[in-house]
Parts: sequence; structure tokens; C-alpha cells
Amino acid sequence: MCAATSRPLTIAQLAELAGVSAATVSKVVNGRSEVAPETRAAVESLIREHGYRRQKRRVSPAALIELVFHALEGDYPIEIIKGVEQVAREHDLAVVLSELQHRHTPGKGWIEGVLSRRPSGVIAVFSGLTGEQRDQLDARDIPLVLLDPSGDPGHRLPSVGASNWSGGLSATRHLLELGHRRIAIVTGPEHALSSRARLDGYRAALDQAGVPVDPELICEGDFLVAGGRAQAHRLLRLPDRPTAIFACNDGQAMGVYRAAYDLGLRIPGELSVIGFDDLPQVRWAIPPLTTVRQPLTEMAATATAMLVSLTRGEPLTQSRVELGTDLVIRGSTAPPPA
Amino acid sequence: MCAATSRPLTIAQLAELAGVSAATVSKVVNGRSEVAPETRAAVESLIREHGYRRQKRRVSPAALIELVFHALEGDYPIEIIKGVEQVAREHDLAVVLSELQHRHTPGKGWIEGVLSRRPSGVIAVFSGLTGEQRDQLDARDIPLVLLDPSGDPGHRLPSVGASNWSGGLSATRHLLELGHRRIAIVTGPEHALSSRARLDGYRAALDQAGVPVDPELICEGDFLVAGGRAQAHRLLRLPDRPTAIFACNDGQAMGVYRAAYDLGLRIPGELSVIGFDDLPQVRWAIPPLTTVRQPLTEMAATATAMLVSLTRGEPLTQSRVELGTDLVIRGSTAPPPA
Repeated sequence: MCAATSRPLTIAQLAELAGVSAATVSKVVNGRSEVAPETRAAVESLIREHGYRRQKRRVSPAALIELVFHALEGDYPIEIIKGVEQVAREHDLAVVLSELQHRHTPGKGWIEGVLSRRPSGVIAVFSGLTGEQRDQLDARDIPLVLLDPSGDPGHRLPSVGASNWSGGLSATRHLLELGHRRIAIVTGPEHALSSRARLDGYRAALDQAGVPVDPELICEGDFLVAGGRAQAHRLLRLPDRPTAIFACNDGQAMGVYRAAYDLGLRIPGELSVIGFDDLPQVRWAIPPLTTVRQPLTEMAATATAMLVSLTRGEPLTQSRVELGTDLVIRGSTAPPPA
Repeated sequence: MCAATSRPLTIAQLAELAGVSAATVSKVVNGRSEVAPETRAAVESLIREHGYRRQKRRVSPAALIELVFHALEGDYPIEIIKGVEQVAREHDLAVVLSELQHRHTPGKGWIEGVLSRRPSGVIAVFSGLTGEQRDQLDARDIPLVLLDPSGDPGHRLPSVGASNWSGGLSATRHLLELGHRRIAIVTGPEHALSSRARLDGYRAALDQAGVPVDPELICEGDFLVAGGRAQAHRLLRLPDRPTAIFACNDGQAMGVYRAAYDLGLRIPGELSVIGFDDLPQVRWAIPPLTTVRQPLTEMAATATAMLVSLTRGEPLTQSRVELGTDLVIRGSTAPPPA
């Protein structure tokens, strides 16, 4: 998709090129539904090619922010919603929530709904938009910010994440300092860059300590409790089983707890466990979970503040913001059994 | 607040009575902000007194549902949001989320935001509106459904809840059948009718079994983990301590787990624990929690379907719907120690 090279066209010019009425072009631009799919596609393609020049007296956007989650599971979305709500409230913006039911890009219905609501901006959490959807927002001056992006956000798109690599490094270093050498990791899904960064931090810590990386101790997870349990069962049945497991999110760490319970292993006496996220519930786990805190609520607040700046046409000082992670030591890590 | 007795007034008539312009009345009706507070109050009071007659060609409402939570804590709101999203999606309605930051009725800013968005309807979760706010929605034909209402919804307001009394009864019966006689309860906050119904179910089960109710074993909680832990500490330090605790929500049950861990008591060998809600995380508790399932997602879907009916002017078959609760027996309950 290349950028428009000539001057963007008005609705009247687009209508002439497409051979349809100005009213029809206007309906496409405003995401209204009463347009035949082929007509819509033709007009969208002209807008992508030439750009769309908004009328001087443009309709101001609605005081809405669209917040899109790939899935609503566990405490993670709640922590994010809190941060978005907090900043949205300060700016009298309402928050429209959608869930993609575990898809990582929204379907057709979603973008049409968004365009018809004319929101001030869109925040996509652990998901992305298709190139076409991004162009559709772009053409209407609706800014987009990615939060904890699942894939590579690219250099053009504003995004907020956490220092995942450093978090992976400090989790693994903590276990090394306790004396562990057989340290396993349950990563997130392969496509998630955040998980890849945590894994690279794990590898770097082991390399620095001169501990060889054993591929058998690296498991791909799915960020879900049941998956963490299944992977931990596999790891804990190895002949030379790990004495510590680094779960790349707290949900999976709870699955590791369960596997240890299934197999009668005490945490932390016989197995150390460390998570990632620091969701509110894990301080109540038994024993309380040692984890790497990523400040989800602050990340969400930051993404929302960036979006507000963009809606005002203010330049961003940084397009990619990474907030720091912190090691929170609780009761699930201890020296390995003698 | 008495109902309007005469014919409702038009904007022009209201303007004349209030001594302001029709444009000003229209701004109040549509929740726009550029009106002096005293003028707004005067017009609202006239609308309450006389009613407001909408123009024939009324502006159709936005394809939005307002979903209001008193607080966003733990998995409870996620289960609700899922149910609302599911039904809203089927009807091409977007969901606007607000949080009242632990207040049980929304503040002024909230209702003005709602009126300006002209939503199809409002769902209030574990919260209520003030009489004035209800009148403001009423006057604009914006229907309201209460979900898991915290106070008495009254007979006029549509609401969805769960069979809390029966749930309290079956939780307590389960403990009695296992042989427990010293059964404590940690309720929710006093103003929550749902919690009162669970407590009454507990009392009924004890009465039926001929076990005297010991007031020392009844603690008022706040539906939070930390509160559950504190109450359980008190209960477990009694000279004649309970052998079982019924926590009126799962969060508090997790607090009871923690108190048992603090005091070195094994669950269920030395203490049985039962919760209420069946949030997704409690099946991963160690041991997995026995609890009373209330179908939060189905309740939310039902409330949303009721709201959709109301927006279409269809009559409701029932104004108050209670969905059934189920006892889910897992690993946290067993006979009392011999």
C-alpha cells in the first residue's frame, strides 16, 4: 500500500471517479451500512490510492475511545481498562469496549461499527489491525495506538509496551542468584513479540552466567493456566527435571502451581516458580507468587494519553514507549533442594 | 417524586415556563454541557413535574449500550462484560463501559455524558441510579436494567439476579451433610441484598437441621480478598473455632485460604471452605474451591436481551429475572476433623 502521491480528493471528486453519487461516497467515509459491498470496496480503494480530503468544516469526532481486546480473560484486561478509564475520564471521553474473541485482528463488522461511531481514537490491546483497517482509520484521521502489541508494531505506529527483555533477564538472574542451574521457561505463543523478548532475556541471563541453554527446558505456552499446567507436567517428568520454572505470565505460573500440587512437589522447597505481570490475584496465591511486575494500568494510561495528544494534533515525543518492569520477590522462589 | 399528571410539555412550552430559550431546553434534554447549573436544575425540575413530550420525528438513539460497574476488581466484571458483549454484538450495539470507583450511584458527570451520547439503554451492575438520574433517563425514553442490584431494585425497575437464597441454603446444607456443626459465614457488605439473601439461606439451612445459629460465627465482609482473610483470622482464633467457613463470594474464599495458610491449617482436612460465584480462577486454587456457581455471563446476556426488548418497545414477560445457582463440589470441603 503506497502513500497518496497527488492531492487528496474531495467527496465530489471521488464520486465522479467511482461513478457513484456523492451521498454514496459520504456513506462509505462515515461507515454507514447501506452501501453494496462492491461499491464500498471500489470507493475504499480510490481513497487508498488518492487520499480523501475532508471538508473544511469537518464533523468533530465523538467523545469516544474505542478499546479493543483480543480476548477478555483473567485480570489482565481489567488492569488495562482501569488505566484507560482513568485518563479517558479526565478528558470526558467515554470508552467503547470490544472483544475479538481470541482473534488478533478484528473482522469486517468491527471496523464498520467504529467508522460509524466516529471515535476520537482507537487503542488495540495485544492485537493489531489489518493494513486495510489502518488505512480506513488513517483516511478519517482517527488515530490508533497499540498497547502490548502482539506482533511487530512497525516504526510508524505509536505503541506502548513494557521492558520485556529486561524483565526476562531479571527473573532468570534472580533464580541463578538463588543457586538454580536447571531453569525452565514456559514462553507465550510464538507470534507474541513480548514473549520472545522475555525468552531472549532468559537466554542472555543464562549466557552471562555461563549456564548452557538446554532446549529441552524451553516450552512454548499459550499464556493460559491450563497450558502452563500441561507444560509444567512435561517438564517435571523429565529425568533431570528443572528446579525452577519461569512462566512468562502469571496465568501460566498458576498452572505450574497446579502441576506441582498434582505431583506432590512443594513450592518453593522442591520447585521455585516465577511469573510475569503481577496481577492482583497472585499476591494471594499460596505461596504468594514471585513475579515480574509490568505496570499494565500505567501502560494503558500512557497509551490513552498518547491517543489524546494525537486527537489534538499534538506531536508525540516518542512513538514507541516502554515502561519498566520490576522483580517482585514473594514466597515462591528459594534456593534449589540440596 | 410523583408522576406527571397533565400532558407532557413540548420543548417550546418548557422554555416558556422556565423563561429560557428553546435552544437551552434542548441542550438540557440532550445532556449538552453549555448550560448554567441553575438553569439546568430548573429545566430538569419542570421536566420531572410535567413530563417532556418528544417531537414526533425523534432523533433515533445511538447504537450504544452503557454498562456501568461500581468497581472493576477481579474476574467478576470480566464475566459480566462477556455476556453483555455477546448479546450486544448480535444486535450491532457497541458497549460503553464506565466505572464508578466503588461508589454505588454515579456522580453528576456520568449522567451528563450518558445523555449526550443518547444510548439505546443503560445496564447498571451492582449499583443503582439516584431517583433524579432515573427520571432523567425516563424523560428521554432510555431504558435501564439493573444487574445483580446492590440494593432493592423496587418493583418498577427491570432487574436480573441469581437465586441467592437457594445458593446460601445449598452451600450450608452441603457442609451440614458432611457433618459440620460449627459453620461460620463471611457475608458481603450489609447494604447488598444479594448477600442478605445468602445469609438468610444459611440461617434457613441451620434451622432446618436443628443447628442453633451462633451470632459469633456470622461476620460481615466486604466481598474483597483482604477482608475475607481478616474475618477468617478472627473466626479461626475463637476458642471453639468453626470447622467450616462459607464465604459469600469467591474473593473472600481466597482470603480464607490465605488465613488458613497463615495459621498452618490444612484445607479441607482441618477446615472446609466454600465460596460463591465460581469465577474461572477458583478451579485453579489449591485445593480447587467448592463453590456456588452463579451464572454471571448468562445473567449479563439476559439483562442485555431485556434491554434490547425495551429499546424496541416490546413488553417484558418478567420484570425481575432470577437465574439459578448450582453447587459445584471440588476439593475444599470434607468431613470435619474427628
